[in-house]
Amino acid sequence: MQRALIVAENAKYICSPNPMVGAVIVKNKKIIGEGFTHQPGKDHAEIDAIKNVKSKFKEKSCSQLKGSSLYVTLEPCSKEGKTPPCTKEIIRSGISKVFIASKDPSQSGLKKLIKAGIKVETGICEKEGSEQNRGFFSRINRSRPFIICKIACSVDGGIGTIKGKDKWITSKESRKDVHYLRAQSDAILTGIGTIIADNPQLNVRVKELQDLKVNLDPRRYVLDSNLRLSGNEVLLKDGGQTTVFCKQGKKIKNLSPSVSIVEIPGNSKRVPIKNVLSFLNKENCNNLMVEAGKEINSSFINSKLIDEFIFYIAPKIFGKDKINFSDFDCSFSNIGTIQLQINNIEEIGKDFKVTATPIYK
Amino acid sequence: MQRALIVAENAKYICSPNPMVGAVIVKNKKIIGEGFTHQPGKDHAEIDAIKNVKSKFKEKSCSQLKGSSLYVTLEPCSKEGKTPPCTKEIIRSGISKVFIASKDPSQSGLKKLIKAGIKVETGICEKEGSEQNRGFFSRINRSRPFIICKIACSVDGGIGTIKGKDKWITSKESRKDVHYLRAQSDAILTGIGTIIADNPQLNVRVKELQDLKVNLDPRRYVLDSNLRLSGNEVLLKDGGQTTVFCKQGKKIKNLSPSVSIVEIPGNSKRVPIKNVLSFLNKENCNNLMVEAGKEINSSFINSKLIDEFIFYIAPKIFGKDKINFSDFDCSFSNIGTIQLQINNIEEIGKDFKVTATPIYK
Repeated sequence: MQRALIVAENAKYICSPNPMVGAVIVKNKKIIGEGFTHQPGKDHAEIDAIKNVKSKFKEKSCSQLKGSSLYVTLEPCSKEGKTPPCTKEIIRSGISKVFIASKDPSQSGLKKLIKAGIKVETGICEKEGSEQNRGFFSRINRSRPFIICKIACSVDGGIGTIKGKDKWITSKESRKDVHYLRAQSDAILTGIGTIIADNPQLNVRVKELQDLKVNLDPRRYVLDSNLRLSGNEVLLKDGGQTTVFCKQGKKIKNLSPSVSIVEIPGNSKRVPIKNVLSFLNKENCNNLMVEAGKEINSSFINSKLIDEFIFYIAPKIFGKDKINFSDFDCSFSNIGTIQLQINNIEEIGKDFKVTATPIYK
Repeated sequence: MQRALIVAENAKYICSPNPMVGAVIVKNKKIIGEGFTHQPGKDHAEIDAIKNVKSKFKEKSCSQLKGSSLYVTLEPCSKEGKTPPCTKEIIRSGISKVFIASKDPSQSGLKKLIKAGIKVETGICEKEGSEQNRGFFSRINRSRPFIICKIACSVDGGIGTIKGKDKWITSKESRKDVHYLRAQSDAILTGIGTIIADNPQLNVRVKELQDLKVNLDPRRYVLDSNLRLSGNEVLLKDGGQTTVFCKQGKKIKNLSPSVSIVEIPGNSKRVPIKNVLSFLNKENCNNLMVEAGKEINSSFINSKLIDEFIFYIAPKIFGKDKINFSDFDCSFSNIGTIQLQINNIEEIGKDFKVTATPIYK
């Protein structure tokens, strides 16, 4: 199963919105085939592994598959989607045992395999399997994406100075690392404040990932309650998918067809995050990265919606005239101090990167 | 010399205000004696090492020392202090070669050794030697101590919340580590704000260091321009040395004889840091740790006086109602963003400790 988890990593940047799955077929204690989930509409891990056996063993593949064991990181799918159900193909292949890391509450593959007389065991490396697909499970179980909040700040928590002199807070290496994070995200959410201040592209610009030949750019969502966008911002012009949420739409000249303006009316001053997350859920968003400023960060913190913080801390102190990465209000929300559990610290360029899970009271 | 640098570490908590020195005597490629600087008035490293040879070789020690080589981390002293000059004893011992890491600008040991016909070589592991005695060299070369600013803060730079609920920001392990820092410091400087808010003891409370049987408590200096101290604060009552700097003294009832009130008059609203540092210099302070709040931290940062920052960063976010560890004013001092060079990051309890050198423009 450890091997299957490693093989699954090949699916990291390409499988979305499908889960990242790895499959390994074993016969007589030897690996005879491996596979991972490809782009939506293409082979799932199980099929990829069976095909791998077939291409290696040609006419002998049937006898190889007969009585073999399949190790797969997620319960095989049972429903007809863009591809036929994997359970059907597993049953047909002659595989006699299936070991599964995590169950998939949206499928009934387990049942079907057992019904077909296949021995099934679940829960092997379950924690690692669930972690690998935390975005997928979040959408399935909580009807919302797994939400990472990325913050690039100074040691005193500044994401900018009031005078706005600092173009980049963090080093080149940290900024490159963010592109990898984006490539792993289905969507990026930002706010109009960030757009006006930085005019960011919020796409993936990493040479090393170009070989994958898939669209790595996440969908972009902009919270712009009063629709202050001019239409000339780079992320509205580059042809990538962008959705702008506002309270009341108006005409923006020469808008690219890849840009949608979504009106979310209501009584509050701002577009409610809850509605935005429902929208994202309908768009099958597993992994959302919030790359925003003080206000949006604070809203998400106030609503206890951040699942993981990734801080890129630059070796700088901004002092008095800084803008903090958050100013969530204790008195308003009763949330008080946020406790974090630090999962990892690493040096990256001149900065350090801290990955932490908030522990909400 | 590497060995001598290690041996010198034995002097770390006891030698102040003398420098930390290690000495190793070598004969026929074998170490025949080692020593380090003891408490003021007791043996320096060189004498300690020569005595070590004598106690090991008894009547044969003279022939052992004759023609031997001495590796010492600092130029041997030439002046009569609380102890006789080491150069004299080295010359008398018969040692024929002396290897020195760092020169000591306050001594002329080098000259005296050469004049006596001893072969001398300097600059071996000089960087490490200078680093080990950075406080001593700071006092000798800059007439001021090496200044560490210790900050215990949240990830967003908070050292407290306005409502003041958090008694401890950092974990037990971090707080213990601070006691080791204090034991290495000659003095701690704090402000009246910190005294009023926390009523700290600012002494060393580490069991593991008690075996050394020396007074590890640093001298304490309090900046209290308008003398707001009541006299009942714990650090005025515990019998340890405390000096309070103010603009104008007044009577404080039942003041312990270990407490001095020092008036520093002048035109500015606050006691000028420059005068405080002159005072500390006269008291032979090599290593000063600033353990203070926002205002004093900012004054030191504004004056470009911090030589090293030690951050204990707790896995917490304070949000809106926090007090920042500094609010130095760019517009006032033109200091702008402080750049740091990170020297070390380590996990400590649930926190992380970052050691960094500021790079002033």
